[in-house]
Amino acid sequence: MPLPIFAALQVTLCICCRLDAFGCVIMMLMSRISTTRNFKQLCNTIKCMSAVRYTHSHPVKMDLSGIYPPITTPFDESENIDWISLKSNMEKWNTIPFRGYVVQGSNGEYVYMTVKERLELVAGVKGMMAEGKLLIAGSGCESTSATVQMTKDMADAGADAALVITPSFYKSGMTDEAMFAHFTRVADTSAIPIILYSVPSNTGIDLSIDVIVRLSSHPNIIGLKDSGGDISKLGAVVHKTQNNTFQVLAGSASFLYPAYHIGCVGGVCALANVLGQECCDLELFFKLKRYDEAEKLQKKLILPNLDVTRRFGVPGLKQAMDWLGYIGGASRLPLLPLTQNQQDVLRKDFKKEGFLE
Amino acid sequence: MPLPIFAALQVTLCICCRLDAFGCVIMMLMSRISTTRNFKQLCNTIKCMSAVRYTHSHPVKMDLSGIYPPITTPFDESENIDWISLKSNMEKWNTIPFRGYVVQGSNGEYVYMTVKERLELVAGVKGMMAEGKLLIAGSGCESTSATVQMTKDMADAGADAALVITPSFYKSGMTDEAMFAHFTRVADTSAIPIILYSVPSNTGIDLSIDVIVRLSSHPNIIGLKDSGGDISKLGAVVHKTQNNTFQVLAGSASFLYPAYHIGCVGGVCALANVLGQECCDLELFFKLKRYDEAEKLQKKLILPNLDVTRRFGVPGLKQAMDWLGYIGGASRLPLLPLTQNQQDVLRKDFKKEGFLE
Amino acid sequence: MPLPIFAALQVTLCICCRLDAFGCVIMMLMSRISTTRNFKQLCNTIKCMSAVRYTHSHPVKMDLSGIYPPITTPFDESENIDWISLKSNMEKWNTIPFRGYVVQGSNGEYVYMTVKERLELVAGVKGMMAEGKLLIAGSGCESTSATVQMTKDMADAGADAALVITPSFYKSGMTDEAMFAHFTRVADTSAIPIILYSVPSNTGIDLSIDVIVRLSSHPNIIGLKDSGGDISKLGAVVHKTQNNTFQVLAGSASFLYPAYHIGCVGGVCALANVLGQECCDLELFFKLKRYDEAEKLQKKLILPNLDVTRRFGVPGLKQAMDWLGYIGGASRLPLLPLTQNQQDVLRKDFKKEGFLE
Amino acid sequence: MPLPIFAALQVTLCICCRLDAFGCVIMMLMSRISTTRNFKQLCNTIKCMSAVRYTHSHPVKMDLSGIYPPITTPFDESENIDWISLKSNMEKWNTIPFRGYVVQGSNGEYVYMTVKERLELVAGVKGMMAEGKLLIAGSGCESTSATVQMTKDMADAGADAALVITPSFYKSGMTDEAMFAHFTRVADTSAIPIILYSVPSNTGIDLSIDVIVRLSSHPNIIGLKDSGGDISKLGAVVHKTQNNTFQVLAGSASFLYPAYHIGCVGGVCALANVLGQECCDLELFFKLKRYDEAEKLQKKLILPNLDVTRRFGVPGLKQAMDWLGYIGGASRLPLLPLTQNQQDVLRKDFKKEGFLE
Repeated sequence: MPLPIFAALQVTLCICCRLDAFGCVIMMLMSRISTTRNFKQLCNTIKCMSAVRYTHSHPVKMDLSGIYPPITTPFDESENIDWISLKSNMEKWNTIPFRGYVVQGSNGEYVYMTVKERLELVAGVKGMMAEGKLLIAGSGCESTSATVQMTKDMADAGADAALVITPSFYKSGMTDEAMFAHFTRVADTSAIPIILYSVPSNTGIDLSIDVIVRLSSHPNIIGLKDSGGDISKLGAVVHKTQNNTFQVLAGSASFLYPAYHIGCVGGVCALANVLGQECCDLELFFKLKRYDEAEKLQKKLILPNLDVTRRFGVPGLKQAMDWLGYIGGASRLPLLPLTQNQQDVLRKDFKKEGFLE
Repeated sequence: MPLPIFAALQVTLCICCRLDAFGCVIMMLMSRISTTRNFKQLCNTIKCMSAVRYTHSHPVKMDLSGIYPPITTPFDESENIDWISLKSNMEKWNTIPFRGYVVQGSNGEYVYMTVKERLELVAGVKGMMAEGKLLIAGSGCESTSATVQMTKDMADAGADAALVITPSFYKSGMTDEAMFAHFTRVADTSAIPIILYSVPSNTGIDLSIDVIVRLSSHPNIIGLKDSGGDISKLGAVVHKTQNNTFQVLAGSASFLYPAYHIGCVGGVCALANVLGQECCDLELFFKLKRYDEAEKLQKKLILPNLDVTRRFGVPGLKQAMDWLGYIGGASRLPLLPLTQNQQDVLRKDFKKEGFLE
Repeated sequence: MPLPIFAALQVTLCICCRLDAFGCVIMMLMSRISTTRNFKQLCNTIKCMSAVRYTHSHPVKMDLSGIYPPITTPFDESENIDWISLKSNMEKWNTIPFRGYVVQGSNGEYVYMTVKERLELVAGVKGMMAEGKLLIAGSGCESTSATVQMTKDMADAGADAALVITPSFYKSGMTDEAMFAHFTRVADTSAIPIILYSVPSNTGIDLSIDVIVRLSSHPNIIGLKDSGGDISKLGAVVHKTQNNTFQVLAGSASFLYPAYHIGCVGGVCALANVLGQECCDLELFFKLKRYDEAEKLQKKLILPNLDVTRRFGVPGLKQAMDWLGYIGGASRLPLLPLTQNQQDVLRKDFKKEGFLE
Repeated sequence: MPLPIFAALQVTLCICCRLDAFGCVIMMLMSRISTTRNFKQLCNTIKCMSAVRYTHSHPVKMDLSGIYPPITTPFDESENIDWISLKSNMEKWNTIPFRGYVVQGSNGEYVYMTVKERLELVAGVKGMMAEGKLLIAGSGCESTSATVQMTKDMADAGADAALVITPSFYKSGMTDEAMFAHFTRVADTSAIPIILYSVPSNTGIDLSIDVIVRLSSHPNIIGLKDSGGDISKLGAVVHKTQNNTFQVLAGSASFLYPAYHIGCVGGVCALANVLGQECCDLELFFKLKRYDEAEKLQKKLILPNLDVTRRFGVPGLKQAMDWLGYIGGASRLPLLPLTQNQQDVLRKDFKKEGFLE
């Protein structure tokens, strides 16, 4: 790529955190590159630049745009963390133009980890991560004080930002006021930026539009990961927070493409553990305005994605990883491995869409 | 419009029921027309042509693409149907490039009507409707036999297609098998095509992807209106039914624009009762690939839409109609009119987005 | 039975509508009667007297205490009402000491009936009913005005009281205020007393304690049938309405016995269609303070009851009727008959508890 | 009490773990004791005996019958455990004829505690507890291995039995099979008996009747605490586990009395933190067959109980404690203290039933 174009692109991205008109022209020029290999290389280049840029621009909020796998945690037969398998997975993931990694999200089985393990995993992934990527660490706990402490410790362990799930045990007490106070306290005391995390299928709590909008004006709360799948809510949040550069990430590959069209800047997608390049392709098709290809790819991803999330959960995701060149392995109990019958269903859906032979 | 372009457009639409590459070129040429008036006229023209085209092409399924208001039913002070107010509303709606009308959908308070009233309304609207538009009549009842009869009667009263809601009272009995048998029987016996209708917020029943896909191969079941708001489901349905030209309509204006991007062909939008032109503009922005404008407009519509659906329901919608030049009036009891406080919230949201002064 | 005892009993029941201390003594004397036949005869006698008594005591509210089967509607092969089978069932039911019948409740498939059929059924059952029993007719519709009319028509058709289900289609609009206005209007205009009916598993609406308590002071609202199974709610309602002789009926045989212990006066039990005598035995065991037998019987009824309600619904209930000497037959579609496998489960549970061989 | 009666009572209780016919006679004799003081003394005596008895009867399962407060944890202003306040509460509770204490149940805010704090609390309460009472420790964690370890540690810290909540985060994975494997593993490895704990309002998981029945035959799983409030389920469980002396505890004071009537042996009641004597009175009224008093008292407890559970949760319970002579104090964040308005509602309900002036 000739230097002037590189420079122009750099400028473009630094200023607005999204692709403006000028960037689009360049992107469209680039999209003429015909071979897939060149295309992917280019994507990686753009990704790397984009990861670097925010580090020296203090007043600008961290740019979250991009795709993140919420990485799974491999275990050995004694249910201990299997670091070698994790390293093997990381090496593969590092070749994919992810914006970064979410460590200790729902798919990382964080609720089955000790505090020590959670921190070791963040530190460990930090050491295995390709340069220029973001490390987002899930630091949510049920109590506010534990979340404050965990967020600090995650920052010390190397996290670039913290993903903080809604507390949820005492459901009737998890009012908008309680949520506002909780996230405000965590954000006030954290050295790294906070990303709100709403995942009603696990927690039974759907963070309300109102409280998200109120929290979005906190200088240290920079975004939201929403896994609820209610695209109207995502659109409403994007719309009502447009003045404070709040960034919304789709919480699942099932609605990644439509989410882009209402202003989401990326996705944290379980499916990216197994079909990472495809998720990144979807992002690029969108950015390059190659919408037909994006729509086609989106549709191929929905059913495999539903399988490794709603339907079969983490054990389903890990099973698919085993088939697709990664090391998934068993989940910690009480999560059971898939039955033969469930495996057959999963395999059929992945085969049907051409992701398995 | 010069005749050759007209002809080309006609051909284009007849063949594929959507805008193909050639059509797009014409559309983009047309989009250069600068005044709003011309733009709207053109839209209306296109709509009319599109409504006409299927009538003489037997083997092609009815083309549902477009926007439909599920029209409200005005009542007088004695809760009788107020035909004069309905006519007044229809005259205004007839100037908007809707693809047609949904009569006796959820927003028509069909559950509060007698069989006689339901049929009179369909016949009445048929007589008030601008030429070239489709009349889709809600013919669903709890029992299969009543639905069969109502669908026949709706056809006799002038309906072009029937929108059939899922039965829902005996929830544990409404299995996939029961749904399959129900809709199959209705479709088998109907002279007009059937559109499936899933609206879990009212019925507590979410028609499953599996049964929709199975039903989509019935020659007389041509589409789905889904109001659940789960865009992944819409995408999955579009994807899995692509071989039999099944048409999916978004059931709400809140997610109309993203729904287009995963292959929906239009929307049945409560909001179109009050902001009909805006819903049609959104459709056209999409078709003309003016995506930035579409996204902007979509976002402005979400909150007013949530207000007149989930939040305040039919009474909210009717209140907004009263403010925006239509005749809404009261709903039948037990639906209560909005309190002053609710009115204030509603007004504020419509004002904030510029739809009220 | 010697006359003085008869008189004493009569007085007792007239005054307090429940068994007071004096009545209990008599009951305990009677409980010495050893043969089952005598026991049953006695029960029937008491029942009949109790049904007669309110007719000439104007200021006293109708006494609802007792057991009611919400009778199923038999259909012929063309889905028409099968009057001969209904008569056959009624003749059997008339020999059981029921307090009366609920006609056109949920188990009567009222949502699958036309207005005409609903009224004919009430009139028909009236003609088949043993003297002295109450006829409670389900008269609820979605709209207030239709419910008002149906309640009047049910009264004309011979109903002694009307059971009015919560409207439920527009769930977000079914607020306490809407419910209060609806039931008040219906009660104001009805010549017969009104019984509130809450059945969340079918409607998705759980009538709140607050609104029930408010409605309980209406002179023409005399009770509640609650099928939700939340015994705390039943207790709270009994407790908060104790000053206005409001009567609470358990809506299911699954919790009939504990419901008596917190002040319910009877039950409308689907299971009474097949195990009517057993439900009445449970009532009598309670009234005679033979609690150990009551508890034992209650437990035997739970699983068969869950089978013919939550699990297999009306088709399950009708299947069990076919096995136990009644004529159940098929439900109207879309309710499907039980599969062979479901039948096996149902039969096993009835056999296990000794109700089938 | 003369010695022979004491002996008879002892024998009775040892043999059957419930009051048999002979015991009842004695109880009824005792019930003639007229003064409240004597009555309470007697209750305490019976309780103490009952707590002692199982210790030297190896083959007999631990007798759980009785009332347990799931004790709250007082915190100081820095959110540290306030041991002095806890001791003060314990001294008051020790004078009440509780069967024992549940430490680190939902009301103990266990999800807001570190592992260390959870164990210290169990050890601490052990040291403060009156002799002869049972200490049941909540040892549930999300993962099976953590639960196994915590249960062992709780036993070492002095727990007599462990209350193990259903894991719940990965809801779709919490199948009957997963639950069966989880609880079996925990029970297999535990030195103390296991009590299953189902509390759907917090976890979103309702342990199924089927899996409870399967688990009930495990020699080290001795009972169930069920807070769901579905009395039919409690009855079904009691009925289907009658052959293996499985013991069911009502999980709330709202349905304690009806629960006794279908075979529950006691209750773990949040309300017992503030109205402990009343909960024990209810138990005794039942055991002494003074049912009218039991019913009356039950009804007075329902609304205060709903307030300190469903409605206002732990902060409501702690607020009531502050009013009624205990030290409640604030909950850990994110649980907020009651607003003034909420306090007013709570106070009104407690006053109305005569528990506050």
